[in-house]
Amino acid sequence: MNGAAFLEALAACVGKAHVRCDEREIAPFLADWRGRYRGRALAVVQPASTEEVAAVVRCCRSHGVHVVPQGGNTGLVGGATPLEEQAPAIVLHLGRMRRIRGLEPQDFTVTAEAGVTVQEVQEAARSAGRLFPLSLASEGSATVGGVCATNAGGVHVLRYGTTRDLVLGLEVVLADGSVLSSLKGLCKDNTGYAWKPLFVGSEGTLGVITAATFKLFPLPSEVVTVWMAVPDPAAAVELFSWLRETVGEGLEAFELMGRSVLALVLKHIPQARAPLPGEPPAWSVLIEFAEAGRGAQLPERVERALAAAIERGWVLEAVLAANEAQRQALWALRENASEAQRYEGLSFKHDVSLPIRALPEFIAECEARLRRHWPSVTVVCFGHLGDGNLHYNVFPTGIEPAQWPLIESRLSELVHDTVAEFGGSISAEHGIGRLKADLLPRYKSEAELSLLRRLKAALDPENLFNPGKVVRGGDRPAREET
Amino acid sequence: MNGAAFLEALAACVGKAHVRCDEREIAPFLADWRGRYRGRALAVVQPASTEEVAAVVRCCRSHGVHVVPQGGNTGLVGGATPLEEQAPAIVLHLGRMRRIRGLEPQDFTVTAEAGVTVQEVQEAARSAGRLFPLSLASEGSATVGGVCATNAGGVHVLRYGTTRDLVLGLEVVLADGSVLSSLKGLCKDNTGYAWKPLFVGSEGTLGVITAATFKLFPLPSEVVTVWMAVPDPAAAVELFSWLRETVGEGLEAFELMGRSVLALVLKHIPQARAPLPGEPPAWSVLIEFAEAGRGAQLPERVERALAAAIERGWVLEAVLAANEAQRQALWALRENASEAQRYEGLSFKHDVSLPIRALPEFIAECEARLRRHWPSVTVVCFGHLGDGNLHYNVFPTGIEPAQWPLIESRLSELVHDTVAEFGGSISAEHGIGRLKADLLPRYKSEAELSLLRRLKAALDPENLFNPGKVVRGGDRPAREET
Repeated sequence: MNGAAFLEALAACVGKAHVRCDEREIAPFLADWRGRYRGRALAVVQPASTEEVAAVVRCCRSHGVHVVPQGGNTGLVGGATPLEEQAPAIVLHLGRMRRIRGLEPQDFTVTAEAGVTVQEVQEAARSAGRLFPLSLASEGSATVGGVCATNAGGVHVLRYGTTRDLVLGLEVVLADGSVLSSLKGLCKDNTGYAWKPLFVGSEGTLGVITAATFKLFPLPSEVVTVWMAVPDPAAAVELFSWLRETVGEGLEAFELMGRSVLALVLKHIPQARAPLPGEPPAWSVLIEFAEAGRGAQLPERVERALAAAIERGWVLEAVLAANEAQRQALWALRENASEAQRYEGLSFKHDVSLPIRALPEFIAECEARLRRHWPSVTVVCFGHLGDGNLHYNVFPTGIEPAQWPLIESRLSELVHDTVAEFGGSISAEHGIGRLKADLLPRYKSEAELSLLRRLKAALDPENLFNPGKVVRGGDRPAREET
Repeated sequence: MNGAAFLEALAACVGKAHVRCDEREIAPFLADWRGRYRGRALAVVQPASTEEVAAVVRCCRSHGVHVVPQGGNTGLVGGATPLEEQAPAIVLHLGRMRRIRGLEPQDFTVTAEAGVTVQEVQEAARSAGRLFPLSLASEGSATVGGVCATNAGGVHVLRYGTTRDLVLGLEVVLADGSVLSSLKGLCKDNTGYAWKPLFVGSEGTLGVITAATFKLFPLPSEVVTVWMAVPDPAAAVELFSWLRETVGEGLEAFELMGRSVLALVLKHIPQARAPLPGEPPAWSVLIEFAEAGRGAQLPERVERALAAAIERGWVLEAVLAANEAQRQALWALRENASEAQRYEGLSFKHDVSLPIRALPEFIAECEARLRRHWPSVTVVCFGHLGDGNLHYNVFPTGIEPAQWPLIESRLSELVHDTVAEFGGSISAEHGIGRLKADLLPRYKSEAELSLLRRLKAALDPENLFNPGKVVRGGDRPAREET
């Protein structure tokens, strides 16, 4: 491949100013957010339209250059970072595709281009009296393209689903440079195979998502937020059923936090205050109910349900947010969990999901197994109990730093094996990316792996898109890695 | 192919008693529910387990015999009926796979085999204090395998989604006889491509669904059902937004019925009574709100919202069901719509969806266009307004029966073209099957058609499953039809 000719061809697609090659300038695009990976690319290319994306894809294909799509670059599994050693690649950065193409309050839909941030979609929806329910800590930087490509979750999955559940329409540039477009925003469309869910969560390995149409919802007008101390995870599971049964489907968040993570938040986040008097309890639960319209008596219904839950021993203490500031303060305890851990130092992180009923036993058993090998580690366990999703992180306290790299894979394997034994998944919401691509064969059947490979081969036969991520190997020799 | 040897091989898979060849006995399996198609098959084979299904698939593959999966045989597009002239086929009837494999109230999930009926899943869930929200007129016969294969909709899609949205897990026998199984019932699982949604709605052309895990919900305890007269579809669309905004997400059904269909129900269904005094209004709306738990004040909130809607002119008159018998009577008016039309005689049916905001103009424009060509026809228009889904049927009144076959395709093309012009879909919930397979190329882009063909080729390269349905032709010559 002639590098100069390739860069000129790219410039013809998007304009010279949008083909960036300066090493210092492109460095942030070549590393992942957690700083775990740093890759190489011939250029960072920033198209402004779907047609330009298609032109870039065709150009790369004809020059034999891989395409690594990138959105806000806030992913946690290295999915948007190019590899270090490989056939040449570009980073296809969608940040200039920033148009909200349509917002239809009567249809309860919004259509936005890949580079629009989640927060901007939320704000556009709100200004039209609608709720875009996707909500995650990185929403100020995470983009439409990124959340679709990774099937992002967040704190409202319990009620509104993951990104895949919110996607009604998608526009995708395929490996042959053709544009697949279905942005009608229809709730029902049974005309042929459901290809949209396939691209959602494919982490840039099957095509480049350039726009999406999302479901919207009515804006909640009554919101009730409660912080509680609960005796143990089993009580939290009982409480979860109880609240859904007695207060109903307005439950939009049910978060569990172990003592260790709350302690880290209180230690590292200056504004953080313990929501209940005394020492942090062994387990805390943060819930939120919301309902559109007035008169649903949510606070009264929640208080009644909690009084009964206290009687049954599922709740020890509870505090309702009395106003928006208190609500924000309670949520900040949850949302600063990642930040607080970052200040504390390195940990081995696991984003796993389990059947809800299996959570209590898993939590007890996994920690017991860890302690058998590494008695001094600190387990930091929290997450979206209502989705069966735990962020299960292990700090190597009491172990020499020199040992950390040596124990990491064994420790993570123990956690993941235990998850698998309890019927869970080794990636709940963060995806596979590069971090877990080597783990899939251990936890998937051969029938499923073969299916994933066949889907990749059918949609991207030349392995143009995002090599080395999600599915490795396959029927044809992967040309990007050995 | 040696027919006798093949039948013996099948008998070795499932037992001789479950390979049915008697012409009279198998006739019901070879015709579709609406009596539009009648096909041929070497046998109707009834396996009792996933392993038996896999054995039958392998046997058929090695003998070059197509497999046409069939559930309750209540589909409306001929998707489960074998072709008349083709390479040899069997009907693979899943009716003996009738086990509910698990019901987990704490996880809010149920796992059932393909042959269990929708009603049986509903009842099992209810007995555990849970709601299985899929609800459709054929629920007494429609099966788990069938509703998954067709992505069935029904009257609660607005709140709970289509079958695809309810499926958390799936077990599928692939064309090579391998079994793909993921029945963990996890809410979140980002480990590789989302293949489950691909099989849901694939109408038996990509694999045989043998079991599914579904989401459950808390049982509603407050239900409010209202029948209303509205001035026109535009008012109904305003009312839809208004109710979601002011009463909230408990809205689980929002059905629109034109005067002509209500008149047919009142004419043909003996127990049917007009819910409001006087002549049937031009347009009626049936809504239902439901909420788990007590104290949500649903009746009061709905009444307040409707009083305001009457003031704004969106509602002319309204009647709330005072008890369960009245509720059932109101729903019977809606649910007997198909039955009443059957008594009336032949009509040209269209199951279409549109952006909700486009419904009023579509309804006016499509009827105007029809009348330009065929002034005397009767349009029967009703459906799930909250999903943008209309059942748009045209009775050829005032036209000689001899002319009917001649006008059908022109008339349907006019309806479908108008749907496409308004940004809609030519199949909202019934699917493509055989009825609409020839129409897809007219309404899909080449990029999308090519994708559908590639997916079919990737998963069923020898075109073993359900030939002639959904996607025809493709890269390889279809061997079953010309």
